[in-house]
Amino acid sequence: MKFSIISFNNTSSARNGLITTDHSEIKTPVFMPIGTNGVIKTILPKELYDINTNIVLSNTYHLFLRPGHKLIAQGGGLHQFMNWDKSILTDSGGFQVYSLAKLNNISDEGVKFQSHIDGSSQFISPEISMEIQQSLGSDIIMAFDVCPAGGEDKKVIDNAVEQTNKWIKRCKSYLENNKSIYNWNQCLFPIVQGGVYPDLRIKSVNQLISYSTCGMAIGGLAVGEEKNAMFDIISMMDEILPKDQPRYLMGVGRPTDLVRSISLGIDMFDCVLPTRSGRTGLAFTWNGRINIKNSKYQYDNTPLNNKTSNFDLNKYSKNYINHLFNTNEILASMILTLHNINFYQEFMYAIRKNIEKGTFDAFHDEYIDKL
Amino acid sequence: MKFSIISFNNTSSARNGLITTDHSEIKTPVFMPIGTNGVIKTILPKELYDINTNIVLSNTYHLFLRPGHKLIAQGGGLHQFMNWDKSILTDSGGFQVYSLAKLNNISDEGVKFQSHIDGSSQFISPEISMEIQQSLGSDIIMAFDVCPAGGEDKKVIDNAVEQTNKWIKRCKSYLENNKSIYNWNQCLFPIVQGGVYPDLRIKSVNQLISYSTCGMAIGGLAVGEEKNAMFDIISMMDEILPKDQPRYLMGVGRPTDLVRSISLGIDMFDCVLPTRSGRTGLAFTWNGRINIKNSKYQYDNTPLNNKTSNFDLNKYSKNYINHLFNTNEILASMILTLHNINFYQEFMYAIRKNIEKGTFDAFHDEYIDKL
Repeated sequence: MKFSIISFNNTSSARNGLITTDHSEIKTPVFMPIGTNGVIKTILPKELYDINTNIVLSNTYHLFLRPGHKLIAQGGGLHQFMNWDKSILTDSGGFQVYSLAKLNNISDEGVKFQSHIDGSSQFISPEISMEIQQSLGSDIIMAFDVCPAGGEDKKVIDNAVEQTNKWIKRCKSYLENNKSIYNWNQCLFPIVQGGVYPDLRIKSVNQLISYSTCGMAIGGLAVGEEKNAMFDIISMMDEILPKDQPRYLMGVGRPTDLVRSISLGIDMFDCVLPTRSGRTGLAFTWNGRINIKNSKYQYDNTPLNNKTSNFDLNKYSKNYINHLFNTNEILASMILTLHNINFYQEFMYAIRKNIEKGTFDAFHDEYIDKL
Repeated sequence: MKFSIISFNNTSSARNGLITTDHSEIKTPVFMPIGTNGVIKTILPKELYDINTNIVLSNTYHLFLRPGHKLIAQGGGLHQFMNWDKSILTDSGGFQVYSLAKLNNISDEGVKFQSHIDGSSQFISPEISMEIQQSLGSDIIMAFDVCPAGGEDKKVIDNAVEQTNKWIKRCKSYLENNKSIYNWNQCLFPIVQGGVYPDLRIKSVNQLISYSTCGMAIGGLAVGEEKNAMFDIISMMDEILPKDQPRYLMGVGRPTDLVRSISLGIDMFDCVLPTRSGRTGLAFTWNGRINIKNSKYQYDNTPLNNKTSNFDLNKYSKNYINHLFNTNEILASMILTLHNINFYQEFMYAIRKNIEKGTFDAFHDEYIDKL
């Protein structure tokens, strides 16, 4: 994996870059749609190509439980399994074992937990997380970390930082001693923890920085803390994270969060918001967010996004999508999810264009409170 | 609408033809996927184009109840509403008021019924059915008929024939006195009734034939009667229906039924089978029907249809689709529905090719018991 910076914004830390993996070129800042089970819900891969998606995120935790990483590996890996030719980043399972599973025990060795699907006893260690992600063939492998909730005591957060530090060594060691079964590069991102505590964040960065060869992630934010506290940490991290590597802010967020984080030097994002919202009737548009189920759209023949140029999405009127939701048609979720991902991709494109043209500040001010 | 016959099979009544509407050219024999609510469930229109679909069926009854034909008309008609540029045939509502709604009363005037959605009192007459279909902009309008269940007494069937006869005159009269609001032709197909009684079928054809200017449908079959009784009637109808117009067998069916009906001179079909089966895990393949949810496909990396050439469907392995069903992913239904419609379209293409090459008999014998 390579990363190069293409242009800077003079009045903020926003920058345009290019990540090159063995599967695709990815212009940054980038938003990665989430394909938890090896599928972006309701979307065919070729539709994602049509709307300029070059990387997706999938989940170690889910694929480990169903269908199992060995099954996917015997078929040629996750790219082939899900018919996706471009890049894949996999989350390590660290976040999901805390947020989804019934947790039994965190030890130095790893995490014992009960599957949220069938209650079965399961175990993931740093080594197992690496084995799973290596078997899946992920272009970007995330370190196995401890991610406490936002409201935890400082002592708990500190312990998470220390455990994450012990585990990065084992992640790195596993990958050095076990070569990839694929003929492409698989690169490890450490995940910085430390909650909203500047001293713990600094400690975590210092512990992890020597393991960061291609990119670094900020975990443990957007997990319940105040928005301003989150941005204070991101701003502080901007000063201490390597500038020559992409910075990935995990689990964020709304378009307004993206604009603000980009001004603070973030390059990569993922969030369920555009996909999950698409299934519940919430549409992101350049004029704000709207609930397409609202009866006021029943006679509205206009499209959701008449600025879009690269897709036939603007041939679907608001009243048609409203009708599809009223009649419980799956196509409602399909069209709206596609619309929302397309909107996010066009939003990121607009940000990159504005950084390039030196007009990012005006764009930032226009959209910081809108979406 | 125009219809021309292109080639015949020497040893049966099978024939290749071409229907030309103002929206598309349709090679016959043709299978029409069903888009009940103005949407082929789980499929985007452009995906249907990709698999060579030139006509779809939609439903007067459903669109009348939701969102209402006037709403669709004010937006430019059903083609524009559902983003579908090719031909549309609409069912008249005759079948649905008997099969779906709670029926209150059939009179000479029309049918009073309770909506299956909210129990509200509704009324459709021949005139209202024509008004709805004209407002929708259907290329092919079906006559409003009385369609009794397969097991009804001969007297009931006879009454249905007589009522259908009275109503065709009113359908025709309405269309003559009310011009289309669209700049394309909208053509009326009468629907022959008569159950499994040859004398009633003959009577019905004789009553309706003068109203048949562009095509004729056979209704009241595949409604619970014996299969052989159905084919006996189709065979008899082959002798008495106009040969220079397309014959549409409503609501049929399995691929084996299609092959057999085509050998008896049928040109057009519709059925929920490929779409509904796709949502429940049943796949049609050249080797027979399979249940993709079966655990034996868990390690099967091969595609469902390795003969397909015009689509990226063969990039999805059986084990991936199996995984999608296991994880309740909507994409499972999407891929399998698309696969099944594609299979039907390729099956019809193969039939047309075999008629053209004079090898239809061999194809008929190979598939008559297989699917």
